[in-house]
Amino acid sequence: MTKVVETALDLHRNNSGKMEILSKVPMENTIDLSLAYSPGVADPCFEIAKDVSRVYEYTIKGNLVAVVTDGSAVLGLGDIGPEASLPVMEGKALLLKKFANIDAFPICLDTKDSDEIVRTVKAMSPTFGGINLEDISAPRCFEIEKRLREECDIPVFHDDQHGTAIVVGAGLLNALRLTNKRIDEVKIVVNGAGAAGVAIIKHLIEMGFQHIVVCDSKGVIYEGRREGMNSVKEEIAKLTNENRIIGSIQDALKEADIFVGVSVANLITEEMVKSMNDESILFALANPVPEISPERAKKFGARVIATGRSDYPNQVNNVLAFPGIFRGALDVRASDINEQMKLAATYALASLIEREELTADYIIPAPFDSRITKAVATAVSKAAKETGVHRID
Amino acid sequence: MTKVVETALDLHRNNSGKMEILSKVPMENTIDLSLAYSPGVADPCFEIAKDVSRVYEYTIKGNLVAVVTDGSAVLGLGDIGPEASLPVMEGKALLLKKFANIDAFPICLDTKDSDEIVRTVKAMSPTFGGINLEDISAPRCFEIEKRLREECDIPVFHDDQHGTAIVVGAGLLNALRLTNKRIDEVKIVVNGAGAAGVAIIKHLIEMGFQHIVVCDSKGVIYEGRREGMNSVKEEIAKLTNENRIIGSIQDALKEADIFVGVSVANLITEEMVKSMNDESILFALANPVPEISPERAKKFGARVIATGRSDYPNQVNNVLAFPGIFRGALDVRASDINEQMKLAATYALASLIEREELTADYIIPAPFDSRITKAVATAVSKAAKETGVHRID
Repeated sequence: MTKVVETALDLHRNNSGKMEILSKVPMENTIDLSLAYSPGVADPCFEIAKDVSRVYEYTIKGNLVAVVTDGSAVLGLGDIGPEASLPVMEGKALLLKKFANIDAFPICLDTKDSDEIVRTVKAMSPTFGGINLEDISAPRCFEIEKRLREECDIPVFHDDQHGTAIVVGAGLLNALRLTNKRIDEVKIVVNGAGAAGVAIIKHLIEMGFQHIVVCDSKGVIYEGRREGMNSVKEEIAKLTNENRIIGSIQDALKEADIFVGVSVANLITEEMVKSMNDESILFALANPVPEISPERAKKFGARVIATGRSDYPNQVNNVLAFPGIFRGALDVRASDINEQMKLAATYALASLIEREELTADYIIPAPFDSRITKAVATAVSKAAKETGVHRID
Repeated sequence: MTKVVETALDLHRNNSGKMEILSKVPMENTIDLSLAYSPGVADPCFEIAKDVSRVYEYTIKGNLVAVVTDGSAVLGLGDIGPEASLPVMEGKALLLKKFANIDAFPICLDTKDSDEIVRTVKAMSPTFGGINLEDISAPRCFEIEKRLREECDIPVFHDDQHGTAIVVGAGLLNALRLTNKRIDEVKIVVNGAGAAGVAIIKHLIEMGFQHIVVCDSKGVIYEGRREGMNSVKEEIAKLTNENRIIGSIQDALKEADIFVGVSVANLITEEMVKSMNDESILFALANPVPEISPERAKKFGARVIATGRSDYPNQVNNVLAFPGIFRGALDVRASDINEQMKLAATYALASLIEREELTADYIIPAPFDSRITKAVATAVSKAAKETGVHRID
């Protein structure tokens, strides 16, 4: 066991987990208890019973997010079950506190049945102001999120999809600014059609990218492909690959401007990089080992490289997005996190780096940049109001 | 609006609820995050995936209780729904923190369907070390608790039933000691056959009370009664009223030693008190207005009076029981809170008052008596071990 493993294990064991639940009000004597609990607590109950919207005034609901998983696609570990996913969900919840002062609570579900997950989350939704879905495997995650967005009156957001897509989108915008390439002209290849890949593709289309080719482990996705398809990939096939390229990732990358990988380690070879257009942009997001190392990519001619790792420049880290997105949604009691709000988060995140600050190693802000949450939240709140999903100003 | 109402409303509004969720570990820089979140968090996940019992070591589960309601029987307010019940559940959760250092979290469910409640709670149970059911109306609460105890591998406890029963049991033990009456000889009348009443009756039988008569709004419950029965009352009818008394509460109270009311304000008249045996004991627990005021009860000859109110002596307050019970159960990772554990809590609570300290105004410890949680928890842990429901020593 290495030293780092010992330290992370020790941290979790010595504290019996990472979070605790504390009172914000005095609980020291019978008078305190008579206000925070019986009989005084009957008054806010009564007020909410008269007007259910007042639950946002008198309770934690308005600042509370559930971090919900079924433990089916946890980190690189896969389907490890609800108990083993709890350390991740605790950590995720605490990131919301750290970066957006949101109280968040992990819910690890002992079911992988989509209907049951939807029913369970909906049943518990009165407590929460928002739902963050986490580490639920594709393609179930698409249906679960879709149904919960329809059935719940609070925002539901699958971070593995949209958090990643938003940060990738912001990074690509800045990479285009840096290389003076046009969003409607560049050819972009996305490798991976799971939760993150599909969300990235749809977000890129919303942003205005027009020439997208998508690959999975069976090669390029095209209309009419038979092998390894599902309903989401059929949809992707319709939306992308307008020249109906058929072949492998190698074929797809020829004369491409941008590669976005959410797939497997060491996929990208020297030849593939060299076959891309000049000033190429590679987002090699496989974790912990990227599709190609930044050193090699640069050596073979790439201009801008981003990875998922904190030890290289340009880390695509969801923490740049989800805290501000939930903050912005909660601040206006949004009933949804819609496309416009996601786009607004993307533009806000990209705009934090001025044109003259941009370099190949600085297209994405750093996680501890204290401006991020506020900038994203403000943009998200504004978009919520513009699209009418807000419930307060 | 009175001043007290304003203060309780202000307290809830000014703080937007009462609880917050904080980190126990540092979250200040990228190194902190690499231990508490990615990539370090993968190590405890992996350990738990190998051996699910280690979830108790590396996460909050072992100190975490869900406070679950459907909002159907909240305080004296009745079926006010999940949102309006949230202030109570937040308060209840914080009592667990205050009195037993247990992290507890409110879950207010948007369903009153028993099957759905059981399914939902079971699905979310991997996160929690215990489940406290709260303010779920009778008779559904009996079936829901029974099924969840069978189906979950963590303790499930309906406090409105058993918390009340345990404190009543402890108070009655001390009242018997004070009055030198024998548990197998006294005649006891319980008025109310809802959640609290039924649990009290069953607990009294476990404790050794032998002559119990139960009344509800239709009068004495007896085998063969037709009006206002349900399956639980049928069971009660079999277990009590061995002389098959038929009539009203007035008939039942004649020559009774003890009255326990969990029913309605001002039910008990001068004549009823006078018709009881000497040295009578009245637990008038209707809230906020008792079945008879302590002043009147004493005036008409009662020896010992307990109420649910903090402004009279001998307050029957569940907070004397549930924090220590959950503490004791969690401390040995109990899989259940069984009858022996409940009895152990009762005896431990009663024993906190020495024979020479007992007076008619001091048969029940005060909520802020700092010995309570430890005494109850120790007894409950011990009973868990004796009955084999513990998972650690």
